[in-house]
Amino acid sequence: MTAKKQPLILVCNDDGIFSKGIKALADVASEFGEVQVVAPDRQQSAVGHAITVTTPLRAQDFTFDGRFEGKSVNGTPADCIKLAHNQLLDRKPDLVVSGINHGSNAGINIIYSGTVSAATEGTVLGYPSIAFSCTDFDEDADLSGCQEAARKVIRYVIENGLQKGVTLNLNAPSGPLKGIKWAHQAKSRYVEEFEGRVDPFNRDYYWMTGKFELLEKTGDTDIDALDEGYASLTPIQYDLTARKLLSELKNVEL
Amino acid sequence: MTAKKQPLILVCNDDGIFSKGIKALADVASEFGEVQVVAPDRQQSAVGHAITVTTPLRAQDFTFDGRFEGKSVNGTPADCIKLAHNQLLDRKPDLVVSGINHGSNAGINIIYSGTVSAATEGTVLGYPSIAFSCTDFDEDADLSGCQEAARKVIRYVIENGLQKGVTLNLNAPSGPLKGIKWAHQAKSRYVEEFEGRVDPFNRDYYWMTGKFELLEKTGDTDIDALDEGYASLTPIQYDLTARKLLSELKNVEL
Repeated sequence: MTAKKQPLILVCNDDGIFSKGIKALADVASEFGEVQVVAPDRQQSAVGHAITVTTPLRAQDFTFDGRFEGKSVNGTPADCIKLAHNQLLDRKPDLVVSGINHGSNAGINIIYSGTVSAATEGTVLGYPSIAFSCTDFDEDADLSGCQEAARKVIRYVIENGLQKGVTLNLNAPSGPLKGIKWAHQAKSRYVEEFEGRVDPFNRDYYWMTGKFELLEKTGDTDIDALDEGYASLTPIQYDLTARKLLSELKNVEL
Repeated sequence: MTAKKQPLILVCNDDGIFSKGIKALADVASEFGEVQVVAPDRQQSAVGHAITVTTPLRAQDFTFDGRFEGKSVNGTPADCIKLAHNQLLDRKPDLVVSGINHGSNAGINIIYSGTVSAATEGTVLGYPSIAFSCTDFDEDADLSGCQEAARKVIRYVIENGLQKGVTLNLNAPSGPLKGIKWAHQAKSRYVEEFEGRVDPFNRDYYWMTGKFELLEKTGDTDIDALDEGYASLTPIQYDLTARKLLSELKNVEL
């Protein structure tokens, strides 16, 4: 008689294997099954859905806290998920989780986010996938509320499954969890994004800084939920077609 | 009396300033106004919507064909558009175009595409923006049909404008233009994506290869249009919320 195998949960992030956030997420994931970590070997913030096509990828064994085994990869978060799926795991994962990111991935941040892209790549490959972020950039932020939210969302997805093609994106403030609100991605953007400087050799260079600007205040966005102290939970998908406009434009002959 | 200024068209890509495709697109754009090229100083394929936050950006003057002035930037396509918008241009562009990419950005390719991300960033910043790609990877591919399509689409957008928040994504085969079909992004993915090898020092490494797999054959996708020899034109947007599912999930308490 063979014992039923525990669910396998693949854990990734974009802050790299040494971040506090990925340990916090692996901890929660381990309550639900076997954890395998496959994550970037260094900080990969804001890489979006980049993949590495012109240089080879390498994966190195590592263990953290003497508890979680994993591989560190010299690539992006999306690379990690593709490589894990294709080469590194002994069996297919039952769930892919990414994070806990140090910094918000609500609103427009979603499109720049390596954390979300790891989860999206999991979805592309057919796995139920969830991204987790804490809005506090401090690397020692109190992630306990985000962990509690992660526990609830992971349990929900393991028990109920998740529609094919959809990724869940959770953001939470630091500190204890007030609650989780379903919300849509807020219309937003960055403004005033560069600080120009002159180097010691008299050449210009620019630091991207950026001020987040909210473009809608409808009360039901991810940013609204966070502003009220709640965690936000948004189902996202990667069919970018603007369907309504397409049906109008179809009559336009070019 | 001041003469009315010509439209300013900002041209970017992800193959870098030395590609044939960006020259071909700048040529077409110059028929409609003043062209400014701000593009990566090197190949940036598959960078997705990456932005550069941990190193400073630099921009260098260059001219190509003795005709087009521009700046080459040590960053990603999205960086180029942000920096152009914020620091490098004397006035705001009337249109942002990206490409012509050497290789398809139809179907799932959209989410990995630096070419599309440059145009999406233009949309985020409030400019009408269009991405152009030729499905032929050959760097000497016949781009004449894609150029003709670009001419039609640029003219359409200059004359009619484009809905805020929407980017147009055009793909065309190489060779003469058969016609342009409005289409939605095809459900698709990559399978069997890595070739494992062993280096001279006996360490494993992996090359990402990937076989494109089409997951729907509905007759009205971008891939269908291309398969029939047409160019495909898709309006895309960056609100990733899965709205229909969200309205169902809102009743689920977590």
